[in-house]
Amino acid sequence: MLHARIVRLEVIDLRFPTSDTLDGSDAMHPDPDYSAAYVRVLTDHPTLEGRGFTFTIGRGTDLCVAAVRLLEPLVVGRTLASIKGDMRGFWRTLTSDSQLRWVGPEKGVVHLATAAVVNGVWDLLAKAAGEPLWKHLCALTSEELVAAIDFRYITDALTEDEALAILRAEEPHRAERMRHIASHGYPAYTTSCGWLGYSDEKIRRLCRESIAEGFNHFKVKVGADLADDIRRVGIIRAEIGPTRKLMIDANQRWDVGEAIQWTNALAQFDLWWIEEPTSPDDVLGHAAIARAVAPIGVATGEQCQNRVMFKQLLQANAIEFCQIDACRLGGVNEVLAVLLMARKFGVRVCPHAGGVGLCELVNHLVHFEYCAITGSDEGRVCEYVDHLHEHFEDPCVVRGGRYQSPNMPGYSSDIKEETLRAFAYPNGSEWLRRRAEAAPVGAQL
Amino acid sequence: MLHARIVRLEVIDLRFPTSDTLDGSDAMHPDPDYSAAYVRVLTDHPTLEGRGFTFTIGRGTDLCVAAVRLLEPLVVGRTLASIKGDMRGFWRTLTSDSQLRWVGPEKGVVHLATAAVVNGVWDLLAKAAGEPLWKHLCALTSEELVAAIDFRYITDALTEDEALAILRAEEPHRAERMRHIASHGYPAYTTSCGWLGYSDEKIRRLCRESIAEGFNHFKVKVGADLADDIRRVGIIRAEIGPTRKLMIDANQRWDVGEAIQWTNALAQFDLWWIEEPTSPDDVLGHAAIARAVAPIGVATGEQCQNRVMFKQLLQANAIEFCQIDACRLGGVNEVLAVLLMARKFGVRVCPHAGGVGLCELVNHLVHFEYCAITGSDEGRVCEYVDHLHEHFEDPCVVRGGRYQSPNMPGYSSDIKEETLRAFAYPNGSEWLRRRAEAAPVGAQL
Repeated sequence: MLHARIVRLEVIDLRFPTSDTLDGSDAMHPDPDYSAAYVRVLTDHPTLEGRGFTFTIGRGTDLCVAAVRLLEPLVVGRTLASIKGDMRGFWRTLTSDSQLRWVGPEKGVVHLATAAVVNGVWDLLAKAAGEPLWKHLCALTSEELVAAIDFRYITDALTEDEALAILRAEEPHRAERMRHIASHGYPAYTTSCGWLGYSDEKIRRLCRESIAEGFNHFKVKVGADLADDIRRVGIIRAEIGPTRKLMIDANQRWDVGEAIQWTNALAQFDLWWIEEPTSPDDVLGHAAIARAVAPIGVATGEQCQNRVMFKQLLQANAIEFCQIDACRLGGVNEVLAVLLMARKFGVRVCPHAGGVGLCELVNHLVHFEYCAITGSDEGRVCEYVDHLHEHFEDPCVVRGGRYQSPNMPGYSSDIKEETLRAFAYPNGSEWLRRRAEAAPVGAQL
Repeated sequence: MLHARIVRLEVIDLRFPTSDTLDGSDAMHPDPDYSAAYVRVLTDHPTLEGRGFTFTIGRGTDLCVAAVRLLEPLVVGRTLASIKGDMRGFWRTLTSDSQLRWVGPEKGVVHLATAAVVNGVWDLLAKAAGEPLWKHLCALTSEELVAAIDFRYITDALTEDEALAILRAEEPHRAERMRHIASHGYPAYTTSCGWLGYSDEKIRRLCRESIAEGFNHFKVKVGADLADDIRRVGIIRAEIGPTRKLMIDANQRWDVGEAIQWTNALAQFDLWWIEEPTSPDDVLGHAAIARAVAPIGVATGEQCQNRVMFKQLLQANAIEFCQIDACRLGGVNEVLAVLLMARKFGVRVCPHAGGVGLCELVNHLVHFEYCAITGSDEGRVCEYVDHLHEHFEDPCVVRGGRYQSPNMPGYSSDIKEETLRAFAYPNGSEWLRRRAEAAPVGAQL
């Protein structure tokens, strides 16, 4: 199957009308329509097709779709074998187009599009191998894994030799860990209880349900109003009791000084981390906050644009929890770089998930990380949000508060055909229906 | 005229085929087609129209054009009076769209588009006042200037009160400085001599011409090959003599360690600054380089995405020269924030220019900065590249190595109608002609 050649990328602007229900609302994103620039990587093989996407929240998805189309000529014509044989070069081809990089570089729309394409190619490779992505990654040698990483701009924090040494030292344990995680899963935490916009009653009910489901870590959105936050965080702490972990998430709402004051005002509720206290660009700001709110840890990463920013967050002791995003970093290749840097700096990776499809993707990443890099899930949790999984062919499964191991070949990124038809924007059947309903009577012709 | 209302944005994808001649080639961008997402801000006033743009280098311009169209609903319907009365709020409206910010935030394609729109609105305001932008800015009170700045994420480096104090202290000197700069101009440096891809002979000739024109500062592109750099930098130092300033520009080619070694290998030529030694995202890397190559100064900024990154470059003592870009920062409002932070931290602003139209824009910015913030051009220079000025209605003029003061109302961003018709991409007359010439005989039908 490695002789298969990529012949075309088909890109779909996929949007779910989640703003109707306030699912996913936070202090900076009050009305998200969970969306994806969804890429089908078509090959000349009769059945082999890769699927990748980047997660967005509505407007702007079209920009990512257009950016994927600009990347398409860099991918079409490549065989899987040629890509697999030069993963680092392939990745750099996408991130270093001499004209396109000007409107990044390696950030924003073009980097999100890179993620969609790169993830689609990894899905393709895993499917060609007949393995779920995490097992496909575990089947690669340490040398092959390192050969997928572009070390440009990070060698002052992690050299290729250091990365190789980390992987080689863990390689003998991989098989045993794969068996272990396949039977035990990986710890998850839930954000479903504490979105802004939910009523107190709904929060209480969701907390109780989550405890019954086996969750031990709970996250709540804060940052819009301190009095309201104290009330809501207090409700959740009361519901979950003194021993379960409680985290707060400000979604970049604050300046540095404000973040310190606000977090310390909520410290009475025994917080495990403060997430996204300020601008995702502010490495030094996060470091200042980390010093001022300890022992509460600082967490960030869902909008951390690339490995260069994560490198600095680690170098500056700015984060205790590294929240990689499978679709904001430039796909699997760049995720590998960050996982290895985090390991070197002794920082725990607790991936961002939720949105649409992020849980499906990061489940593979934490599985791989456990088996090949850390061998531990101690004090580590992967975010879980119970939204939109029904649209996936291989939805993630969380049982007893733990992610179960994916088993289908690929990166679990296949979205059902009927979903693609219904939620393609603006002319999918669901969007046409909604516009027809919204139109005044008589205007529907 | 402040009752005029914005009715529409017209956006043009404008591209010049500069890759033919290697003008503007550097280590990371070997074949740029200088381009712009060019915005006409149309009003209900019969003659009043604003013009703004963001500079790009070819592919990806279409993404910025599409992003401007997404911003259009945030602007249309606003009167000039309502914008002028709430400049900070207007700016934050553009940068904080709850869905669109996900694909930034405040970086890459969406922020470049923001710059185009914001610059177009300032052009409109200056034209409505009948003043060139720099004089229009100088006519604003310190309070009005501060009210244009979004201090979100920078208050730990510069508060509103501090900004106001800086401006107020300088306000009594503005009128005198305006007279002074109108007769003396502002010092420029030239990058035209030292692009990669130029022959030695061409470099020598251009150096001599530039000296004859009155330039005292020269910049050369480096980073592709050390032996070649030593030869080319040596040629320029020999041509310009021992007293003129010589700067090198690596356009992000190096990792941190490599930047230190390479720069020190060229230090023999008495360098004033090393520009863009590494990733524009690497604040801590620039700081490490700055410590290791002193007394050579570190300069960066043309791809510094926003005020939050500039804040950190200043906080970390990472730069001696702050190279704002009029089109990468989110327009005039965000430039004001960076000018004031640089002043507080005692760092010289030496704007990035060149491309298409950047010289026209930054000339206004250095004029304003001189009059209202620093009162000094000592050790400060503004980049000048002698390309594409012929397409502007009010081209910048550099005489005796100094930028002359712009006099026409607006931000000097009006591009000639015939240029817009010829270089609109892909169907402007010049692009049609080139494709017809490139097509094989018989295929032109």
